Amino acid sequence: MKNYEKYMKQCIKLARKADGRTAPNPLVGCVILDKSGKEISTGYHKEYGALHAEADALNKLGNEAKGGTLIVNLEPCCHWGKTPPCADLIIKKGIRKLVIGMRDPNPLVAGQGVEKCKKAGIEVIENILHDEAVKLNEVFIKNMTKNEVFVAIKTATTLDGKIATKNGSSQWITSPRARKEVQKIRNRYDAILTTSSTIIKDNPSMKCSLQGGKNPVRIILDRELKTDFSSKIYSSSDEKVYIVVDEALDEVKTLAIPTHVAVIKCPSDNLKLDLKYLFKKLFELNISSVLIEAGGKLNGELVSLGLADKIYQFMAPKILGDKQGINAFEGRNIGEICNTLNFKFEHIYAHAPDILLIYSN
Amino acid sequence: MKNYEKYMKQCIKLARKADGRTAPNPLVGCVILDKSGKEISTGYHKEYGALHAEADALNKLGNEAKGGTLIVNLEPCCHWGKTPPCADLIIKKGIRKLVIGMRDPNPLVAGQGVEKCKKAGIEVIENILHDEAVKLNEVFIKNMTKNEVFVAIKTATTLDGKIATKNGSSQWITSPRARKEVQKIRNRYDAILTTSSTIIKDNPSMKCSLQGGKNPVRIILDRELKTDFSSKIYSSSDEKVYIVVDEALDEVKTLAIPTHVAVIKCPSDNLKLDLKYLFKKLFELNISSVLIEAGGKLNGELVSLGLADKIYQFMAPKILGDKQGINAFEGRNIGEICNTLNFKFEHIYAHAPDILLIYSN
Repeated sequence: MKNYEKYMKQCIKLARKADGRTAPNPLVGCVILDKSGKEISTGYHKEYGALHAEADALNKLGNEAKGGTLIVNLEPCCHWGKTPPCADLIIKKGIRKLVIGMRDPNPLVAGQGVEKCKKAGIEVIENILHDEAVKLNEVFIKNMTKNEVFVAIKTATTLDGKIATKNGSSQWITSPRARKEVQKIRNRYDAILTTSSTIIKDNPSMKCSLQGGKNPVRIILDRELKTDFSSKIYSSSDEKVYIVVDEALDEVKTLAIPTHVAVIKCPSDNLKLDLKYLFKKLFELNISSVLIEAGGKLNGELVSLGLADKIYQFMAPKILGDKQGINAFEGRNIGEICNTLNFKFEHIYAHAPDILLIYSN
Repeated sequence: MKNYEKYMKQCIKLARKADGRTAPNPLVGCVILDKSGKEISTGYHKEYGALHAEADALNKLGNEAKGGTLIVNLEPCCHWGKTPPCADLIIKKGIRKLVIGMRDPNPLVAGQGVEKCKKAGIEVIENILHDEAVKLNEVFIKNMTKNEVFVAIKTATTLDGKIATKNGSSQWITSPRARKEVQKIRNRYDAILTTSSTIIKDNPSMKCSLQGGKNPVRIILDRELKTDFSSKIYSSSDEKVYIVVDEALDEVKTLAIPTHVAVIKCPSDNLKLDLKYLFKKLFELNISSVLIEAGGKLNGELVSLGLADKIYQFMAPKILGDKQGINAFEGRNIGEICNTLNFKFEHIYAHAPDILLIYSN
């Protein structure tokens, strides 16, 4: 088992190489051992439309796969998609043992790949590093099981939870090293979402400066169309830019929006855009995951509505110490401490001098 | 070297067994190897007035120490205190090699123990796990080099830095497991300091419930004598209770203070007690270290004055999300983000479901 865990770790590492490239497909890595237990091939799903990990690894082999073991973090598919079913290829190549991290999260097909292999006489070992396999594909799993976009919040705070002074001064709370890590996170998400307030205050480009990184789709919440279209975020790039306006906004005003910016008209209530409606809309637009980089008000609203699946909190060992400073999460009205919103620590990383705390809902 | 590090780690572990028992002496552990390199004895300084670690370890041995190696986290003393100089005993027992973590922090005697041993022909290896040795005796080092009490703040926050709701509701932000860890921290400090506001709000006992733990001295800041003497914190115990009042307080009022509670009269300015004066006074009263368990105002004042050496932040993965909630640090007035107060991450511990973040100044 220990040995399978080692190879499963390798699968997960291989899969992660395509972080941000495979949506709406999952991240998958594969390792193949020959019948003596020697590693003879590896593969991974490199991007949407490319070979599945199992095929990527098996296609490099001829007869050597016969009698071997195939380790893969996700149950092999058994249906025709953009590529032929992996289960068929595994059987055809003569694999004798299949080791998987988790079953397909789609309840309609879960277990069918395993069944097909078992029927062909292949021994199947399941749930190796199951929790890691689930974490790896948290986006895909939410997409498949709930038909919803995966939503993460990124924030950068002092140790007392502030993201800016009362004057809005916030650059920079965290160090260049932590900010570099943000680029890696951006690279994993299909889209970045921010607000008109953040654009007016900070004028961020919200691009991914990572070498070889991809620019995410940019989404701007601008209910009343307050932002200036010469702001950096609107500058043309390879990826789409969406502006989200109130559906009640005067049609004439929307004529000012540049043609390369797509408009999403969203209902609103009490001067707030309907975020649930918006996220449904984004999923229809093939956006699998969205990273929120905005202020305390939007963050507070998202967590209050239970819409945040994950939080990335970069924290600097600094104290602001001012009640009037801006909080990472605002807008709630709490009397009793039992009414806090509860998350779980998922991981803590050191990015000296700062840290990154990751929470899941 | 690697081997010495292993034994030095053991010294530090032994030393820690007396955490909170040795002040104003340092924490010291000792390991002795015979000339073949085999471990033959260990010892540590168990409490103030007891044998030094070197003597504790050497006294268990006869001739076997001859030609051996003595590993100890702090340079052996060379002067008569409550016990004879350890350097003399080391020489007398025929030790051939001395391995230390750090020199004596007292600049007046630093290096003298090492010199004495060298003159007697003993090889001396210094600075093994130096940083860990320094951290172990951070209290002693501050006491010796600055003639000041070591000050630590303990706080329990949500992930957005709040210690209570606007109504003062705070029980409990952190889990029982984290609160148990607080008892261990209390056990390390000579005194716990809190304020009349905290007593009126929470009525804590501020004792140490750790099995075999010692109750720290309790210090209550109560400038205007607002607390009720039937509050738990005033209940009699083995350790002293101090109340700190404004020196301008009406003498007649102080007559209400029970006889087992010692009074410290402290100057004040702008309705605030002079904390620098108070800490000097506490050091004169042989208090080496004090743990602050109070609210955001006192915490904010302490860090603003640069008086906090260390911060223990227990953090629950919860969001309060209310601007009106009470912050862990308050009272500062910050316009630009470059004016935050900067600490350093020292350590992060998991106490699931919470974490403990430790910062040093």
